[in-house]
This record gives sequence, C-alpha cells and structure tokens, in this order.
Amino acid sequence: MSKGLPDLNKDFSSWYTQVVNRAGLADYGPVKGTMVIKPYGFQLWENIRETFDSMIKKTGHVNAYFPLFIPKSFLAREAQHVEGFAKECAVVTHTRLKADPREGIIVDPDSKLEEEIVVRPTSETVIWSMYKKWIQSYRDLPILINQWANVVRWEMRTRLFLRTSEFLWQEGHTAHATAEEAEKETLDILELYRQLSEDFLAIPVYTGVKTDSEKFAGADKTYCIEAMMGDKRALQAGTSHNLGQNFAKAFEVTFQTQDNKEELVWATSWGISTRLIGAVILTHGDEKGLRLPPKIAPIQLVVIPIIKNKDQEEEVKSFLEPLIVQLQDLGIRVHQDWTNNSPGFKYNEWEMKGVPLRMEIGPRDIVKDQVVLARRDTGDKLIVPKEEVKDQIVGLLQDIQSGLFEQALEFRDQNTHSVNDYDSFKKIIKKGGFVRCGWDGEQATEAKVKEQTAATIRCIPFDENPNGLSCVFTGKPAKHEVIFAKAY
Amino acid sequence: MSKGLPDLNKDFSSWYTQVVNRAGLADYGPVKGTMVIKPYGFQLWENIRETFDSMIKKTGHVNAYFPLFIPKSFLAREAQHVEGFAKECAVVTHTRLKADPREGIIVDPDSKLEEEIVVRPTSETVIWSMYKKWIQSYRDLPILINQWANVVRWEMRTRLFLRTSEFLWQEGHTAHATAEEAEKETLDILELYRQLSEDFLAIPVYTGVKTDSEKFAGADKTYCIEAMMGDKRALQAGTSHNLGQNFAKAFEVTFQTQDNKEELVWATSWGISTRLIGAVILTHGDEKGLRLPPKIAPIQLVVIPIIKNKDQEEEVKSFLEPLIVQLQDLGIRVHQDWTNNSPGFKYNEWEMKGVPLRMEIGPRDIVKDQVVLARRDTGDKLIVPKEEVKDQIVGLLQDIQSGLFEQALEFRDQNTHSVNDYDSFKKIIKKGGFVRCGWDGEQATEAKVKEQTAATIRCIPFDENPNGLSCVFTGKPAKHEVIFAKAY
Repeated sequence: MSKGLPDLNKDFSSWYTQVVNRAGLADYGPVKGTMVIKPYGFQLWENIRETFDSMIKKTGHVNAYFPLFIPKSFLAREAQHVEGFAKECAVVTHTRLKADPREGIIVDPDSKLEEEIVVRPTSETVIWSMYKKWIQSYRDLPILINQWANVVRWEMRTRLFLRTSEFLWQEGHTAHATAEEAEKETLDILELYRQLSEDFLAIPVYTGVKTDSEKFAGADKTYCIEAMMGDKRALQAGTSHNLGQNFAKAFEVTFQTQDNKEELVWATSWGISTRLIGAVILTHGDEKGLRLPPKIAPIQLVVIPIIKNKDQEEEVKSFLEPLIVQLQDLGIRVHQDWTNNSPGFKYNEWEMKGVPLRMEIGPRDIVKDQVVLARRDTGDKLIVPKEEVKDQIVGLLQDIQSGLFEQALEFRDQNTHSVNDYDSFKKIIKKGGFVRCGWDGEQATEAKVKEQTAATIRCIPFDENPNGLSCVFTGKPAKHEVIFAKAY
Repeated sequence: MSKGLPDLNKDFSSWYTQVVNRAGLADYGPVKGTMVIKPYGFQLWENIRETFDSMIKKTGHVNAYFPLFIPKSFLAREAQHVEGFAKECAVVTHTRLKADPREGIIVDPDSKLEEEIVVRPTSETVIWSMYKKWIQSYRDLPILINQWANVVRWEMRTRLFLRTSEFLWQEGHTAHATAEEAEKETLDILELYRQLSEDFLAIPVYTGVKTDSEKFAGADKTYCIEAMMGDKRALQAGTSHNLGQNFAKAFEVTFQTQDNKEELVWATSWGISTRLIGAVILTHGDEKGLRLPPKIAPIQLVVIPIIKNKDQEEEVKSFLEPLIVQLQDLGIRVHQDWTNNSPGFKYNEWEMKGVPLRMEIGPRDIVKDQVVLARRDTGDKLIVPKEEVKDQIVGLLQDIQSGLFEQALEFRDQNTHSVNDYDSFKKIIKKGGFVRCGWDGEQATEAKVKEQTAATIRCIPFDENPNGLSCVFTGKPAKHEVIFAKAY
C-alpha cells in the first residue's frame, strides 16, 4: 500500500490494472484470458446482481438455467449469428483423458465426439431450440425468462472485467406474440438498465439505438446504454436486442394465434455483465484508488479504531458496540478494522478499496462523545456528536451516492461536444471525448471515420435532433444525430 | 394433467421422470445428458441456494468466482484426482469455427490449442494454483471461499437432477494453518449440510465418513450426509472433504508459520448440487406428484377461486385482497390461480407441483366468512373462519414442514435394519432398505459385497458401535459398524 498508483491522467491503463489488483478485485486465471473474481470483487457483483434480479422479478421475469454446451450445428442456423461468434468459440471435441506411458496424461482419441460442441458465447440458439418444444399456442406466451450464467468468448487481448475469455452475466430471452410487445419489452429492459446504471452504479448513460454495423449478430435492433469513462472513452454498459422473428425462423418456432393462425414468435434478448464492475472502477476511481457508490459497496462504512493499548481497545469497543448494532439494524454494511496495522496504513487500504465512509474513533473522541467521519468521495472530514452519528451516516451515504453521480455527469457533459466540421471532430476524438454530430446514415461513412479516427458510433441517442444537421464527414444532409467516441 | 402418474410402488423410475416433466421442473437440453432447469425447478434451487448461502456467510465464508477452464496439466498434478475424473472430462481443443464450402460450418483446424483445456469437473486444481499466489504467511490464513458454479462431468447414463453432464453446485475451498482447523471446518460444514437437509428440505440423513474406496479423489477423508429415497435406495446428498496437504503438495502451497517455519497448507472442499432437488422429489413425492417442504417451496399457498361469473370474481377478489396483503407481509409466498381452467384441473395441477397448502374460496364461503384450506401432505381439508386464516396458515405451514420430516424419518427408520448374517443382508438389499452391520474394514470385502448385491457402504456413521459385532460377510471381528445400501 505504500507506493502510490500510476498517474491516472498520464497512464489510465496502468492505473486501472493496479487498482484492480491492489483493491483485491480480480486476478488472471491460469488459462490465458480467464478471470478469477476475488471475494471483494465478487461482493460487488453480488450486489449488482441482487439489485437487477429484484428489478426483473418485479416486472414478471423468472430465472431458469440452460446448458453451457451447444451443438455446433445450432450456432450455424442463424447466419448472422454464427458469423458474429465463429471467431471466438471454445470448442469441445473430446470427453476423456487417459494415461500415456510417454506423455503422461493425454486426451483419449477414442473419446472424440461425433458432433463438436460449442461452449456458449450467448444462449439464443440453445434457448430457442427449447422454446420450440415449449411454445404451441398464444396461451404459452409471453415467456419472460432470464438466466445468470457464465459465457465464453475467446479473446486475444484481454483486460480484467472489460474483456476476458469467460465472464459472468445475465441474459434475458423473451418470446412474444406480437412485434409491438417484443419492442416494448426491449425498451422496458433498456430503461431498467438505465436505472441500474444511474441510480445504483451512479454512472450516467446515453440511451439509444445502435447502427446496423454495431448491432448484435442476429438482432433486428440493438438498444444500448453508453457511458463515459474517466479517460473520456466510451463503454457499452448494457444492450437490449429486438430479435424480430430471426431465431423463431431459424428454429421454426411458431404458435397458434387466438384466431387459429400459425405465426412465428417474436423475440428479445438482453444482457449486462461483470463488465459493469470495470465501468464502476473507470468512472469513479481517483488517485487513491476505487470510489464505490454506497448502494453497491460491499462495505459502506469502515471503522478505524485509534488506540494505543488493550485498555483503550476495550474502551472503544464498548463505545462502539451499541452504535454498530443500530447501524446494522438500518441495513448499513459496516466493517471494523481491528488488525494491527497503523491507522495511516488502514486509511490508505480502505481508500484503495473505495469504501464510501470511514469512521475514526479513539479515547479522545470518546471523552468528547464524538466520532470523526471521513468521506471517500470528497476527502472531507466531519466531527460528529455521538447522538447524531446514525443520522449523519445515513445522510452522508445518500450524499455520496448522488455526489458521485453528479460528478460523473458533469464530467461527461463537459466532455461531450456538438460539432459540425470534421476537423473539430478529429481534434476532440484525439484529445478524448464524445462527439455529437450529424451522420448521413451510410455504413461507408461510418467505416471511413472509424478507419481514420478509431471512433465508432456509440448510438443514435433517443433525444437526437437531426433537423438541419449535415453529416460531419460527407457534408450530406444528416439522417441522424449520433454520438461518436473511441470505445473500450 | 388428466392421466395419472405411474404407480410409484411398481415403477418408481417412470414415476420420477413423469413428475419432473409434469411439475415443470426440468427438461433435457440438445447436447446429450445436459439439463435445462425450468423456472419452477430453478426457483426451488434459488431457495436452497439462498438458504445455504446465508448459512455459510454467517459462519465467515465469502463467495468468489474461479474460471471454468483448467489447463489439462493442472488436473494431472494430483495423481488420485486425475484418476478419479479423467474418464468424464469435456476437453476444449479449438477456439474458432469457420465456413467451409462443402460442409458448412466447421471447426477451424488452425485454431488448435497448444495445451488442451479441461472444462472443470470440480475446481480444486485451479483454485489451489491461485492460492499459491495468495498465501505466503499464517496471516493470509484461513481462506474460507465458496463458489456457486456449473461443472461438467461427462456421463453416459443420465437422469435429470440426479446425474447430468452439467450441473449446478456450490463448492467450498478452504485453506488452513493446521490439520485440526481443517478437520474442524470439514465437520462444521457437514453439520450445516445436515441442517440444510433436515431443517429445510425435511430429509433425514445419516452423517458419517466414507470408506477409502468411496472417498473423493484427492481427499484424506470424505464425510457425507446420506438419505433414503422413496424406493429405499440411498442418495448421497452432500460431501465434505478433508484434503489434508494433498493439493498444497501438488501446487507447492506453503506458508510461513508464526515461528518462521515453512509448512504446507491444509485444505478442505465441500459441495452440494442441484441433485438435492432430485432428493426432495424422491423423498417426499407421492401418487399425486411432488410434495414440497414449505421452507423451500416456490409457492407456499395457492389460492383457487371457485366462481361462475364475473360478479363472483369481483366478490372473491375484494374478499381476498386484504388477506393476501397480510400473508405477503408475513413473507408467505402466495399464488392466485385466476386462469380459466376448472377448479378440479387446478387442484391436480398444483398438487402435481407440490404446493404445500391450497385455499379454496367461493361466494358460499364468503357468505359464511370462511375459507377452505387443503393440506398437500395429508390431503386434509379444514374450514377456517376468516379471522383465523392468517394464523392457521402460518401454523399449518410449520406442521407440514415437520410432518414431511417425521414421515420421511419414520419411513427411513422402518427400512433400516441391523443384521448379523449375510443371508438376511441379501434379503433386505434385494427387497430394498438400509442395512447396518459389522464390516471387517477390508476393501476386498466391500468389493465382493458390491459385486454380489450391488450394495455399497454408504458411510461409517458417527454413531457406530462396532463392539462385539462381526463382519456380515467374512465373520471376522468388525472394525466398523457401517450402513450398506444400493445407491443412486
């Protein structure tokens, strides 16, 4: 803990790697590109998961579990889908190992599978193969199923939480009788993603629709939430897809309508992943490490006793005991650090881990019937009389939650620029930031801008206003107002 | 729903398959031996998971996540371990698919991995490869980590929940400074398993230790909970392993002791899986289908309105509304069935799904200010005055919980026999039941009994009393009193 972090204004990438490591969030696994989520990082994920799980259950969704393994032929049934995932599929070809006198343990060649198996990169195909069995009539619809699962997408260049060969996520897969209902579901879920991101992770997001070249392989439309990270790059934080009838067609899933017609079923799918943990780090982190929004922080308040001997320890403990009980009764997640390290060491450590509030308490405070509270977000210290501590903590946690959001929002808005000409565009993209501008709607334009600047269209925001705009690249009348940025 | 189930006294196996299917618990996936857990089955798993998760968190354990993929060489490091799992490993050998003009989508031969990857059958090896990085000193111990995950063990003959190629489980992996501490952890967890099984799943279990031939591949000792199913066969419901220093040796995990010595770390691992859902079905099910213990039932009370028209519907709804709110405030999981099916159809359906309590309510009940409550476990019907409904429901759910346990306990005890001679042994094993008897402690004896009767030693129970017993097979003085049975 003694050495400082790399300067996040100069080397954001090393800063990120060190924070993930020193805050004890994650580690690489032995197979290239795989991730070990350590307990502190996993508690973050558990809090995010429970928050979103309760949101979707309240809106009528249920959880289920579908197999990890997908027959290779299933993936191939939807042409766009297989094209999108073919290059990153882990393939199971054998089912046994055996001892070999020369080489030790080898793969048993006699166990070769007739049809190779793909480890799920996403579950549309396996799920729609089941929906074919489950859906006969309009009475079987809608199906509103979600699963929390691991998926595998083989990656060459990996980064903990942001891009790993295996990650954890939720994937919702719904089936509907009408196109309107599917579109509504897609947008309803996007709104839940926005709430999760803004109200819990304190990350402001743009909501909108992806261009055809950026949409999900197999979707008619992909909606997304896009956030700005601390280095002014964009991160796609969640996507909700209207799949139209593409998977129903591929798996021949039809239903009998109320007036006895046979129709193809309408589908949606939507996902958020452990990537969100990366987004939290990259949005809120500072030169001391993580800063966690209280609503998802594994520990909301860390208590650091300032003591010199056993007597003082006893004194502080009895002062604290009733207070801690009160705080826990309020549902506040408290941790007391009674290790032998110095207070200064502990301050650094818990700041690195992003705990929103710190309480310092020693014999001198007890005499004055007070404690010291320190905010992680601003660094402010407050001396608080004992009888006010409980209310102050509750209030401060709310302030920190909204303060982090406001700070991120201000940062994003300051670094989002509306421009009309390509020179300004290139300058902003180069120095970092989001650009709002006109686009002529041509994939070729999008491709050229990407080639020249590495910026992509993050989304066509819902609040676009293309009237009177011209395309930033071609100068033609704009079909859409879009947001361009370099992205993670 | 109209046709009855197969007779569970004549064809328990078909009865099981039909209950799993008709109660909507699970289905086979497209890859042989894989399982789809449907929403109703998954809610059962969620309830079991949340119950046990809270037990282990209360006792200081934390969750984390380790990768699905394990390098083949890791598995080979512990000789017994690889021997135990080699024959059921799914092996990933390639990482890309590609289009082929003749065959459509094929595995890209250029994507062959240098070292093959095993899909985890269990995670000791990958976890201890990480513990090597995390453990240096006694200060880093104990590590009390658990993960909820999917694992893959390739199976030829599969059965939903009981034996599938992929299943869900929790696996705890702890690291300790002393042998005593590891042994205590192993036994503490076994006690939690016993509590989960008896107090929540209402399944009585024998607790004890496995013989060497039945223990986990890589363990010094395997403790287990063993339950009797409705066909009098045994089911291993949970295992807790003292791994000694075997994995520390294999992965060279040492720590510096307080007096500056270098020592190998002591390990435990322990697991329960979706198999427990199978155990619940096989223990409590009857001729009408599932019977679920209230504590884990997704729905504890189903309300069936008995109505003939829209007016009656309104009447019943306004009668019910305040009552439902009261019940939900008590945390009771209520479902109202307002579908158009007949009451009789609904009774059958919810009985099949094992809902512990049913409330019938129609205009005639409203006139009398009463409802009818029907118990799933006994079939008893009670007429209950409205003002007593809430208390009655709370009490009945407790009665059903303990009633199911008592019934299962009586059944098990009636079918557990202490015998001294091999003829009686064979008769009981043939007709079904557990046998308690002496065993000379020889693996050869165990193997011969298994060969001749298909019965295995389920455990050496903690309450064994071998004094004066002789081995049921060899007649030699018994080293242990053991429990033999045919097992799932």
